[in-house]
Amino acid sequence: MFLKNFVKTHFTREKKLRLSIKNIFGFYPGNIFLYKLALRHKSASLDKINGFKINNERLEYLGDAILGAVVAEYLFKRFPYENEGFLTEMRSKIVSRSSLNKLSHKLGLSKLIVSSDTKNGHGKSAAGDAFEAFVGALYIDKGYEFSKKVIINHIVTVHYDIDNLIHADINYKSKMIEWSQKEKHSLRFDLVEEIKQKHEKQYVVEVVVDEKAITKAKDFSIKGAEKLAAEKAWTKLGLAPL
Amino acid sequence: MFLKNFVKTHFTREKKLRLSIKNIFGFYPGNIFLYKLALRHKSASLDKINGFKINNERLEYLGDAILGAVVAEYLFKRFPYENEGFLTEMRSKIVSRSSLNKLSHKLGLSKLIVSSDTKNGHGKSAAGDAFEAFVGALYIDKGYEFSKKVIINHIVTVHYDIDNLIHADINYKSKMIEWSQKEKHSLRFDLVEEIKQKHEKQYVVEVVVDEKAITKAKDFSIKGAEKLAAEKAWTKLGLAPL
Repeated sequence: MFLKNFVKTHFTREKKLRLSIKNIFGFYPGNIFLYKLALRHKSASLDKINGFKINNERLEYLGDAILGAVVAEYLFKRFPYENEGFLTEMRSKIVSRSSLNKLSHKLGLSKLIVSSDTKNGHGKSAAGDAFEAFVGALYIDKGYEFSKKVIINHIVTVHYDIDNLIHADINYKSKMIEWSQKEKHSLRFDLVEEIKQKHEKQYVVEVVVDEKAITKAKDFSIKGAEKLAAEKAWTKLGLAPL
Repeated sequence: MFLKNFVKTHFTREKKLRLSIKNIFGFYPGNIFLYKLALRHKSASLDKINGFKINNERLEYLGDAILGAVVAEYLFKRFPYENEGFLTEMRSKIVSRSSLNKLSHKLGLSKLIVSSDTKNGHGKSAAGDAFEAFVGALYIDKGYEFSKKVIINHIVTVHYDIDNLIHADINYKSKMIEWSQKEKHSLRFDLVEEIKQKHEKQYVVEVVVDEKAITKAKDFSIKGAEKLAAEKAWTKLGLAPL
């Protein structure tokens, strides 16, 4: 009786996951175990084999690369007369941690994450990480061409406003560098602190102009902290709004 | 007569390129113009269309992403019990600028580059850039699965010693950070200078321990400069060899 219920619940859950995937991404998964793995946050890692934990991190690594390639090609073809600087920046905007986190919440994918750390939403980047891991699972399950179609037709063209993105997110770090060169000020971005948390790391970067500390900012990446600190400095120095 | 010679030379050159590609990579190209574009360095850019220059930079952007995906999958499958940190570091080693430069020279691909700046070897990274652009051309010409086979069978398994790479290239920056935390020293990597050259940019990074500058190093990337500076500092501080 217990076994019967266990088997029933187990298969009902898998059936639900299949349907969720069909609803969100428009396809029925082949090997459902891959997708289950993609949704397993490191806080809910399964067995260790020689210290090796089973969770979605490997699939995230793979999915990140596949997503990068698909988006690179999409932009390459969509913008035939833009240079590689433009394409690189557009791609960063599309696959940035914050974009992918938002996307994962919007799709409802983040709700499917299996985690033992639900109180604080299993860390800030878990949603985006799970999306990347999902892409990794999709790629292994269905191959490159199929994955490409799903990513373009069900994600990029539906959930991103590409024309809007072109003008979004001014890179204040670059702007600060341009300004300092033009106006002959010395400029430095100092990494002044690295804060280790349970599963993540945050970086504090300080903007130093003419050897004087202007502002600090904190982020999950050094680049992010630099940009935020630069934006604050831009305002604090009273430079023209961009 | 002039036209006849022009046409003859032109087709002879293309035929040579076809043969070179067959010899180096084991396949006959379909659309030869893609590969010609991949070998056109920015110093030999063709026409501008509204300020848009025709050279290999867009293909390099695309090829970088495709190469990243192919190598990611290769490592994912080759090392089923290694975590994503290991996979990410291995991939960085394989696709680093210096690895790709060496590879391009070894393959003889760098000799095929069309450039107007041959004196100083068209900039230090031109060889690796051309390899990436070549991968971009290959991908557009033949698709993902074909490109994957060429990259794995004619590049990765032939020209890389993967088992050797595992132990190569200690990351002295990480080691310095570990050391500073263990030994309670403050540690900073300061970007102290950005040197703009004609086509490239170099970065000077300084290692600062307990508010004292220890060493400096210069590289084409901030990360590279950090690693080099860290390695020098490691020696200068008399820390145990790794």
